[in-house]
Amino acid sequence: MKNTFGSAVSLTIFGESHGPAIGAVLDGLAAGLPVDADFIAACMDRRRARGDGLSTSRTEPDRVEFLSGVVDGRTTGTPLTLVVQNTNTRSGDYAKTAALLRPGHADYTAWVKYEGYQDARGGGHFSGRITAAAVAAGAVCQQVLAGLGVRVYTHIARCAGVSDAPLPGDGSLPEEAAPGHFSLIDPAREIPMQQAIRAAGAAGDSVGGILETAVAGLPAGVGEPFFDSVESQLAHLMFSIPAVKGVEFGAGFGFADLTGSAANDAFRMGADGRVVTATNRNGGVNGGISNGMPVVFRTVVKPTPSIYKRQQTVDYPAKADADLVIQGRHDPCIVPRAAVVQNTLTAFGLLDLLTVRYGTLAQKHGLPKA
Amino acid sequence: MKNTFGSAVSLTIFGESHGPAIGAVLDGLAAGLPVDADFIAACMDRRRARGDGLSTSRTEPDRVEFLSGVVDGRTTGTPLTLVVQNTNTRSGDYAKTAALLRPGHADYTAWVKYEGYQDARGGGHFSGRITAAAVAAGAVCQQVLAGLGVRVYTHIARCAGVSDAPLPGDGSLPEEAAPGHFSLIDPAREIPMQQAIRAAGAAGDSVGGILETAVAGLPAGVGEPFFDSVESQLAHLMFSIPAVKGVEFGAGFGFADLTGSAANDAFRMGADGRVVTATNRNGGVNGGISNGMPVVFRTVVKPTPSIYKRQQTVDYPAKADADLVIQGRHDPCIVPRAAVVQNTLTAFGLLDLLTVRYGTLAQKHGLPKA
Amino acid sequence: MKNTFGSAVSLTIFGESHGPAIGAVLDGLAAGLPVDADFIAACMDRRRARGDGLSTSRTEPDRVEFLSGVVDGRTTGTPLTLVVQNTNTRSGDYAKTAALLRPGHADYTAWVKYEGYQDARGGGHFSGRITAAAVAAGAVCQQVLAGLGVRVYTHIARCAGVSDAPLPGDGSLPEEAAPGHFSLIDPAREIPMQQAIRAAGAAGDSVGGILETAVAGLPAGVGEPFFDSVESQLAHLMFSIPAVKGVEFGAGFGFADLTGSAANDAFRMGADGRVVTATNRNGGVNGGISNGMPVVFRTVVKPTPSIYKRQQTVDYPAKADADLVIQGRHDPCIVPRAAVVQNTLTAFGLLDLLTVRYGTLAQKHGLPKA
Amino acid sequence: MKNTFGSAVSLTIFGESHGPAIGAVLDGLAAGLPVDADFIAACMDRRRARGDGLSTSRTEPDRVEFLSGVVDGRTTGTPLTLVVQNTNTRSGDYAKTAALLRPGHADYTAWVKYEGYQDARGGGHFSGRITAAAVAAGAVCQQVLAGLGVRVYTHIARCAGVSDAPLPGDGSLPEEAAPGHFSLIDPAREIPMQQAIRAAGAAGDSVGGILETAVAGLPAGVGEPFFDSVESQLAHLMFSIPAVKGVEFGAGFGFADLTGSAANDAFRMGADGRVVTATNRNGGVNGGISNGMPVVFRTVVKPTPSIYKRQQTVDYPAKADADLVIQGRHDPCIVPRAAVVQNTLTAFGLLDLLTVRYGTLAQKHGLPKA
Repeated sequence: MKNTFGSAVSLTIFGESHGPAIGAVLDGLAAGLPVDADFIAACMDRRRARGDGLSTSRTEPDRVEFLSGVVDGRTTGTPLTLVVQNTNTRSGDYAKTAALLRPGHADYTAWVKYEGYQDARGGGHFSGRITAAAVAAGAVCQQVLAGLGVRVYTHIARCAGVSDAPLPGDGSLPEEAAPGHFSLIDPAREIPMQQAIRAAGAAGDSVGGILETAVAGLPAGVGEPFFDSVESQLAHLMFSIPAVKGVEFGAGFGFADLTGSAANDAFRMGADGRVVTATNRNGGVNGGISNGMPVVFRTVVKPTPSIYKRQQTVDYPAKADADLVIQGRHDPCIVPRAAVVQNTLTAFGLLDLLTVRYGTLAQKHGLPKA
Repeated sequence: MKNTFGSAVSLTIFGESHGPAIGAVLDGLAAGLPVDADFIAACMDRRRARGDGLSTSRTEPDRVEFLSGVVDGRTTGTPLTLVVQNTNTRSGDYAKTAALLRPGHADYTAWVKYEGYQDARGGGHFSGRITAAAVAAGAVCQQVLAGLGVRVYTHIARCAGVSDAPLPGDGSLPEEAAPGHFSLIDPAREIPMQQAIRAAGAAGDSVGGILETAVAGLPAGVGEPFFDSVESQLAHLMFSIPAVKGVEFGAGFGFADLTGSAANDAFRMGADGRVVTATNRNGGVNGGISNGMPVVFRTVVKPTPSIYKRQQTVDYPAKADADLVIQGRHDPCIVPRAAVVQNTLTAFGLLDLLTVRYGTLAQKHGLPKA
Repeated sequence: MKNTFGSAVSLTIFGESHGPAIGAVLDGLAAGLPVDADFIAACMDRRRARGDGLSTSRTEPDRVEFLSGVVDGRTTGTPLTLVVQNTNTRSGDYAKTAALLRPGHADYTAWVKYEGYQDARGGGHFSGRITAAAVAAGAVCQQVLAGLGVRVYTHIARCAGVSDAPLPGDGSLPEEAAPGHFSLIDPAREIPMQQAIRAAGAAGDSVGGILETAVAGLPAGVGEPFFDSVESQLAHLMFSIPAVKGVEFGAGFGFADLTGSAANDAFRMGADGRVVTATNRNGGVNGGISNGMPVVFRTVVKPTPSIYKRQQTVDYPAKADADLVIQGRHDPCIVPRAAVVQNTLTAFGLLDLLTVRYGTLAQKHGLPKA
Repeated sequence: MKNTFGSAVSLTIFGESHGPAIGAVLDGLAAGLPVDADFIAACMDRRRARGDGLSTSRTEPDRVEFLSGVVDGRTTGTPLTLVVQNTNTRSGDYAKTAALLRPGHADYTAWVKYEGYQDARGGGHFSGRITAAAVAAGAVCQQVLAGLGVRVYTHIARCAGVSDAPLPGDGSLPEEAAPGHFSLIDPAREIPMQQAIRAAGAAGDSVGGILETAVAGLPAGVGEPFFDSVESQLAHLMFSIPAVKGVEFGAGFGFADLTGSAANDAFRMGADGRVVTATNRNGGVNGGISNGMPVVFRTVVKPTPSIYKRQQTVDYPAKADADLVIQGRHDPCIVPRAAVVQNTLTAFGLLDLLTVRYGTLAQKHGLPKA
């Protein structure tokens, strides 16, 4: 349904980069759930550009306003609508290049799809800025999950040729990075990673990377066998994030060269009388349904298409080949900022699946004992 | 919506491996579209087990019966329902192992989700057999696409350590493999690939692989910017195929180590006055919307979880650790059979997106000139 | 979504009157729910024609076969698919009149919509016969509701000019009529009603009527404030029943001439400490949400369009005015048979809304104490 | 899906009466469609209270702001979001009565559903004010329909015991009433109707009425045979309007006492070579699908539940019987204001069905010749 997704909990995203505001409608929440403005602000801050040579110098406060569904810091149970005003828009930078299609961007596809009526300023509806609304809505969901004992964590597994440490082998999740820092398990990788990103930026180029998410505390039995598998649900959401071009669960593409005996996760009785798996190569999902182990997946984020090197392109109105040198403000790498988008959209996707199984009221009153 | 997917064209899948029948309801087709029973039968045959040591010895005719929506070889415009009878079910093989959870399978998650009431015979609703219904329905969609000038092709990019030749660099699609043969661009790879699969099977083990799909003729402008991107739509469907654990478009996970200048596809004016890209690293999709170049993506299919080696597991009713040696009939590799599932579900997913943009009637009357 | 409806529980209907079979897919049921074949058969029997001059002489056994989702009389939690074979089809009767549009029927609209490819035999997908599948699926839902303490009752409030007694004033529901009898509160009205129907039939004409449904035991708080109100949900389903042309809740169209003071239902504390209303003019629904009083609504069923009197019409292929005298087998009144369709679809619609609020598992484990 | 409705075009409604703003997201529009602010403002004005003793003295300007999806007076093809600020909220009036359930309102059901966390001020999400957002969004749809040659008209068929003249017998639609006037076919009925409403208000009471809608120019073949019939679609939307308690098409409940020969509409060849019906008792719909004749339906709007007479009710927190005398500002009749809500939501519902059949692009490029 285009810009609305979800079964029991649904999320509608709207807005253009240089329009009055971007926003989201989150429907299907129980009433009385706490909405912690500080937590949302912290998530917004993780997504926000910082103007430090690593990300665009467009630095807006990204203050989240609730238009509906929240009173006195609690959900009312009706649609929760939030908006973020667009305050720092310099459309002039973009207007110059409007006729020239930016390679790797949606300029051409938008032109064809919207027949010239698209809002092209700043990427319009295709701008990464739109994800700010998703982050705010997903942050609300993440808090609801936390109240149910489900924790979602995302780190930069690899970026600009620098890899992070792997997830702990015991199924535990690392702590969130401190505010203002890259989401990394090993903080020592931050400076080399930033240096590599800056080097790409200094060369007028950009870099991509891999984001890895792990979810702990999700009970077994969530998700559906065919179209609404945990994997389908999360992949659908991840591929809606601009620049994500791949999603893999557990051993992912590594499965291609494994044998079954090396790929299967042996079942064992856990210390607490619950069934566990000795390994987690299936990423916490069997047959599309959560198995109680951490849900683990990775996405690949392509390099920012806006680079400062001269590129070959087309002047679309003139229907002629042309050269393009992009102006304006652009991140040499969006991977660090995308981490919180992936994290919060994962929270939304899993809250939806949990609600299908346990009902709206369980969001507030808790899951039944397994 | 659990076992139903699609916006303008929807597909509902039902059935258990050892129940009376499996089937599908395909809704949203125009009236008067040809339904070619021979083409559907050929697709079913590509999916079917062949009992030659490469796939399970369960060899059912898989004859597709239409219960509704087709008269005299044409769609009526009302829901098209098809069923495939389950004729060759030897539940005895499975009953023995019902208490022991098969690693890598959905036995445990089904038990938790369905509280012991699941149909466990032969994997029940989680069996790969259910995909036969998807193939039949998707084959109908593939024919509709063909009538609109859109062709879908899938080959085994890699399996059991043997890789196929790459897709042609000129955007053309290879011919379909002859009936009874693996879907490969280079037929010379078939015998080495089969030998590698047989070797794994002879060792009581199994292997996985990678399937690559390319779609030619899809007009630019199809798909939606956020949740219903071409990538979200296709990934959602691919991850509903049992054993698929990863999906990537274009350069996919390779983007992680590319720079923007190496990742962007330059736009050029094509010979026919249409905009093309000089390369296709974005897999035919920009901003979630088709750009007129071939849509290219790969999935990874994990090794068959049913292996004959002794495995550690749990006796679930007894809540005790146990060993398991699987009996019954199982493919050492399902990748070759999964190719047609991926191909036909891709056809369904794209027909849905095309119908959103052009309407139901366009399925029959053709797309407007670009 | 065309032939699929429902949020947490969804129903897909398929089939043509003279095709191989009609059927339904019911998805979103919990596992382990009892499926009582006798109860379903009894519902099917209430809908079935009896060939006694009151309904069409087409008397098929209407045996329900389960293709999936049921094992050993219990749901498995996966899609429940049922079919009813079409065994007694005499298409010859219809072929004669295919060129002549039957007034009041969907012949013309089907021709336009499906461009001549519709299955016109016996009304095809528009036949009242399709409702048999809805009855079977809804009967399953009705049993689930019964397990949750929710009872659904429908009677013929008026038919052929004869009215039934009103619903009891105390909110209790009457007993179901005995098998083979009209669904009436006052059995003494049956013979006059049948006589009036037969008289219309003997005159080559037909009659309509009003069906009234009451639901007891539905907890307060079910339904959504705007688009998914109890009223929207049930009206959507009722208007999908062929021949239903109106739906009203509580005082319904009578509200037009009431004052607010006569229309409002005063709240009072009930004997059991729950809030009740002194009257029930709002039909158990305030603001789209159930208030714990019986949900009461009425539909109007138009007279059977198939009559034996000569009618003016159009020969569609010839594009010429023409006269039509209908042959074949047709009920002079479908109101008595439609009662069970209304009753079972109501059960489906309410089970869906209950599941949204309480979750899938609650279908089996019961609703939380209020 | 709770507060989102529609297949190809979807509408999401949000907001509370005394929250910061109400609004709507309209998704699925083609790009380049004109958005006429004056027409929208005129529709808003028809819905707005006028403080003249006929409607509440809450008179807000109801200015529609577009947050997304519109640039330079044209749609961009991405989600169109509009908000209306709540500027004139006197919550004090309501706070006094918060503990006392208002009969006929959603106070009780909201309390149960939202467990005390509802925004009770001014009716919150249940307020008729929420319909302002629906009017603005529907007005956009109405303009799109106008561009396709489809016109929607609604009048007050009956109110406060005064009936309007009937719709013209020739299928033509009356002119819209002048701004500031009741939507009536016969302007001479306005003063008696207003007098009757004022008389009810002066007595501390309220009145209801009947709204009738007619749609001209809708091509035959729109709508689906089962769940997405024209009747199901429109009834679903109408019953989402607060206070609507009944919907009937064509002869509606009058069918109960008609014979088939009096109910059927004879087909005839029209002057322009198209098939027409000699009468229109089926309200332009056969088998759920439009037949090319005007779509005609009526709704009943119950009397405003807020009356000034003393009423019996319950103090919900105290769980005790109590008396209530409502303060604040309330219309003695909302029927005149509801007319434009019905009209614009009808436009939305039909645009959705048209788009399913003809595709998104047809909204801009027109319907194919029949």
